[in-house]
Amino acid sequence: MNKKIVLHSLAQIALIESGLMLLPAAVALYYKETETVKVFLIVAACIAAAQIPILLLTRRKETDNNMNFRDGVAIAACGWIVISFFGALPFYISGEIPNFTNAFFESISGFTTTGSSILGDVEALTKGMQFWRCFTHWVGGMGVLVLTVAILPSDKKSSSLQLMRAECPGPNVEKLVPKGKSSALILYVIYAVLTLVMIMFLVFGGMPLYDSVCTTFATAGTGGFGIKNAGLGFYNSAYIEGVVTVFMIMFGVNFNIYYFIAMKRFAGVYKNSELKLYLGTIFVSIGLIMANTMAYGVYGSFSKAFRYSSFQVGSIMTSTGFATADFDAWPEFSKVILILLMFIGACAGSTGGGFKVSRVLILIRTAKRNLRKLLHPKSVNVVKSDDKSLDIETVHGVSCYLIIYIMIFFVSLIIISLNNMDFTSSFSSVTTCFNNIGPGLNKVGPMCNFSELSTLSKYTLSLDMLLGRLECIPVLMMLAPSMWFKKLY
Amino acid sequence: MNKKIVLHSLAQIALIESGLMLLPAAVALYYKETETVKVFLIVAACIAAAQIPILLLTRRKETDNNMNFRDGVAIAACGWIVISFFGALPFYISGEIPNFTNAFFESISGFTTTGSSILGDVEALTKGMQFWRCFTHWVGGMGVLVLTVAILPSDKKSSSLQLMRAECPGPNVEKLVPKGKSSALILYVIYAVLTLVMIMFLVFGGMPLYDSVCTTFATAGTGGFGIKNAGLGFYNSAYIEGVVTVFMIMFGVNFNIYYFIAMKRFAGVYKNSELKLYLGTIFVSIGLIMANTMAYGVYGSFSKAFRYSSFQVGSIMTSTGFATADFDAWPEFSKVILILLMFIGACAGSTGGGFKVSRVLILIRTAKRNLRKLLHPKSVNVVKSDDKSLDIETVHGVSCYLIIYIMIFFVSLIIISLNNMDFTSSFSSVTTCFNNIGPGLNKVGPMCNFSELSTLSKYTLSLDMLLGRLECIPVLMMLAPSMWFKKLY
Repeated sequence: MNKKIVLHSLAQIALIESGLMLLPAAVALYYKETETVKVFLIVAACIAAAQIPILLLTRRKETDNNMNFRDGVAIAACGWIVISFFGALPFYISGEIPNFTNAFFESISGFTTTGSSILGDVEALTKGMQFWRCFTHWVGGMGVLVLTVAILPSDKKSSSLQLMRAECPGPNVEKLVPKGKSSALILYVIYAVLTLVMIMFLVFGGMPLYDSVCTTFATAGTGGFGIKNAGLGFYNSAYIEGVVTVFMIMFGVNFNIYYFIAMKRFAGVYKNSELKLYLGTIFVSIGLIMANTMAYGVYGSFSKAFRYSSFQVGSIMTSTGFATADFDAWPEFSKVILILLMFIGACAGSTGGGFKVSRVLILIRTAKRNLRKLLHPKSVNVVKSDDKSLDIETVHGVSCYLIIYIMIFFVSLIIISLNNMDFTSSFSSVTTCFNNIGPGLNKVGPMCNFSELSTLSKYTLSLDMLLGRLECIPVLMMLAPSMWFKKLY
Repeated sequence: MNKKIVLHSLAQIALIESGLMLLPAAVALYYKETETVKVFLIVAACIAAAQIPILLLTRRKETDNNMNFRDGVAIAACGWIVISFFGALPFYISGEIPNFTNAFFESISGFTTTGSSILGDVEALTKGMQFWRCFTHWVGGMGVLVLTVAILPSDKKSSSLQLMRAECPGPNVEKLVPKGKSSALILYVIYAVLTLVMIMFLVFGGMPLYDSVCTTFATAGTGGFGIKNAGLGFYNSAYIEGVVTVFMIMFGVNFNIYYFIAMKRFAGVYKNSELKLYLGTIFVSIGLIMANTMAYGVYGSFSKAFRYSSFQVGSIMTSTGFATADFDAWPEFSKVILILLMFIGACAGSTGGGFKVSRVLILIRTAKRNLRKLLHPKSVNVVKSDDKSLDIETVHGVSCYLIIYIMIFFVSLIIISLNNMDFTSSFSSVTTCFNNIGPGLNKVGPMCNFSELSTLSKYTLSLDMLLGRLECIPVLMMLAPSMWFKKLY
C-alpha cells in the first residue's frame, strides 16, 4: 500500500470528524451546557490542528494519484479505528465516561452502528453528549468513506470507487452511476431525505424535536442507542413504535431500491429477490413470535403481541437493537428466532449489519445447486441471482466469507468465555457485537449493559464490531505482512 | 432409484441385524436372564421371517445388476433407519424401555454412535440388554453398509463401492484397494484387532471381562454408552481412564493410517496433515483446559488436571461422549473449548463424528487462498491438501457441506427451542446429537439425560443423529422427488 495516500486520507477523515463535532457543540450551546460546549470545541480544535502537518507533509502530486484496492482497504480499516478513537475523546475528556476503554467501546459501538452500551444510566449524560452518541450512528450508518467521498472534492474517480468498494465488499454492491462521487452523493441524498421524513413523523406524533432527532439518527444508522433508560418504552406510544418499526425496516433495505424507485425503474424493485426474502422473513418471524408469545401468555391480546413482536423483529433483523420489551424474558422459541435473525441481518447495501440477506440467498442457492448436481450429475447447474447467473468466484467468495465469519466468531467466543459468564451471555454478546446489533441475552440482555466485561473482552468485542461493519475482509487484509512491506513479496 | 435393488439390500441388512441379535441372546443366556434371551430370539426370528418373502420377491437377475450412486444413497439412508427401528424392538418389547419413542431414540443414538441417552438408571437394564446397547455402537461405528459389504458375497464390485461411497461421502475417502469388498474386509480387520487389543488392556487393568467388552464397544464406535450410572468414574482408576483416552483418540484417526502402518508405507502417515491438525488440536486443548481448570481451582494438582482434561478432550473431540468429570461445572472457557471441539470432530474415515478435521483443514486453506487472492489478484492460487492440489469441485463441495450443516443446525435449534429449555441446553442438545457426541450442557449435561424432551424433539434429534452420521447428503437426497419418481424428471 501507498502509505502517503493512506495517511493523507486518514487525516482527511479526522478533519471531517472534527467538523462534525461542531454539531453537538451547537446542541450543547442551545441547552446552555457550557462545559460540554468547551469539551467539543477543544477536542475538535486539537484534532484539526494535529491533522494540518500530516496533510501538508502528505500532499499529493498530480503524478502519484493512482489509488489501488489495497490502499482503499487500508484506509477503510484504519479510518474506522481513527474515527472511533477520536470519537471517544469527548466522552473521556468530559469525564462523562471516565474509563477510556469504555469510552472507546461506546464510540466504536456508535460508529459501527452496533448500539451495545457500557452505560447503565444514559440519562445522566448531558444533552450534547447524548446527541453526539446518537449522531455517530448516523455517520457510521452510511459509512465513513462514503461520507469522505461525498464531501471532498473528487480528484480521480478511480480513488472514490476504490474507497467505496473497500468499505462495502459485499456481494451485491452495484454502482448506481459510473462516478463514485455521484453515487456517494445520491446515497446521502436518499439517506438525508428518509431521515428528515422520519423526524417529521415523530414530531407529528408528539415527540420533542430533540428526542425525535436523536431517535431518528439511531434508527437511520440501524444503531440502537437511546436517550432514555427505558428506551422507546419511555414514550409508551404505539404510534411512535409503529413509525420506528416501519423506518427500521426501511433502512434495512438496499438503498439501490430507493434509487430505482426515484428513477421509476420499478422492474428492478419487483424482481429483487433479496427484498422478497427480507420482507418474507420479517413477516414469518413476526407471525411465529406472536403465536409463541401469545401461547405462553406473555401478551394477552393480538394487538399487543403484534406491536411488540413486529417492533422487536424489525429491530433485531435490521441490527438496530432497540428494545421495547424485555425479549430476554420471552419463551425460548422466540429467542431462538431472534438469534437466527441476528445472524441473517439486513439487506446488503443498507445501513444494517449481520451476514446479509443477499449472502444467505446465494448460500441457499449454492446448496440447492449442489444437491441437484448430486442427483443429476450430467446436468448443467448454475447459481442464479435475480435472473443473472452468478460467476463461480462470487459464489466461492460468499462461501469463503462464511468460513471466515465462523472462524472469527469462534475465536471471539473463546476469548469472551474467559469472563466466565454463562454460555448464553458469552454467545449472545459475540453474536450481537459481530452482527452490529446491540443487546444480547442474559447478562448482556436488553435491560443490562456491557460495563462488567473485562478490558480484553471490551477490545475483542470492539474489534468484532469493526470486523462486522467492514465485513471482515479489510480488517483481515491488514494482518497480512505484504500489506505493509512491499519489498518482501 | 431402482426400488427392487434398494428393497433387496434393506432386507439383507435386516437379516444381518437379526443374526447380530444372537450375540446379546448368548450373553443373556450366560447370565441366566431367560426373559431377555426369549426377547432377543423372538425379535430376531420375527425380523428374519419378515425378510424372506422380500428377499424372494426382489431376487436379482444377472441382467439388472447395475447399482448406481442413487441406489447406494437410498440404501444408506433407509438402511440406517431400518436397522435403528429393528434395533429398538428388544428394548421396547422387553419393557425395559416402555416408551417406543425412547427406545427408538436409544437405538438410533447407539447405531449412529452418538451415545445420547434417555435412561436415568442404566444399571437397571439386564446384562443382555446392556450388551446390545453397547454393541450397536460397535456395529454403527464402522458403518452398516461397510458391514453388509464385508459379510455378503460380492456380486459386482461396482455395487459395493457405491454402497461404501454413499455411507461415507466425506472429502477424503480413498479406496484402500480397488475392490470394495476387500476394502471393507481390511477395515473390519483393523477395527477388530484394535478392539481386541483394547479389551486385553482393560482386562489387564482389573476390569471384569463383561465390562471391558462393553466399554470397548462404546469406545471403538466412539459412541459413549456406559454400563454404570457413574460412567467410567465408577472404576476410579487412572489406568483404565488412560487406556480409554488413548484408544478413543486412536479410533478417531482415519483408518487409512493404520492400513499405511500395516503396509509399512510410513510416508503416508508422516505427511498426513489431517493427523497433525487432529493431534495438535488435542494437545493444545488439553493444555488450555488444564490451565483454565487449575486457575479456577477445579483441580488442585497438575496430574489430576491432566487426567480429567485429557480424558474429556479425547472423549469430546472423537465424539465418544464419555464423561468422568461433570464438565458442565467447569469454567466457561473450558466449556467453550469443548463446544468448539464438538463441532470440529474427529478425522474423516474414522468411527468419530462431527464436521471432521479434514473438512476444517480444507476450509482453513480455502479462506487463506481467498485472502491471498485479494492481496495478489494476479497470482495463481490453488487449495492444497497433502501436496495434492484439490480440484475446485472438492473445495466447493466442502463449502456446500458447511452451508447445509449450518442450515440443518438452525432448523433443528428452532424446533428444539419449542421445549422452552434454556438456550444453552437447546443449543448443546442439537450440537451433541448432530455431531454424534452424547452429552450436552445444562439440562442435557453429562449428569442428566434426554428423557424429558418432547416426542417431537426426540424425533428431531434422532434425525439429526442420522444426518450427522451420514454427513447430511444421503438423507437430504431422499427428500428430492426425483429420487422416487423417475418418469417426472
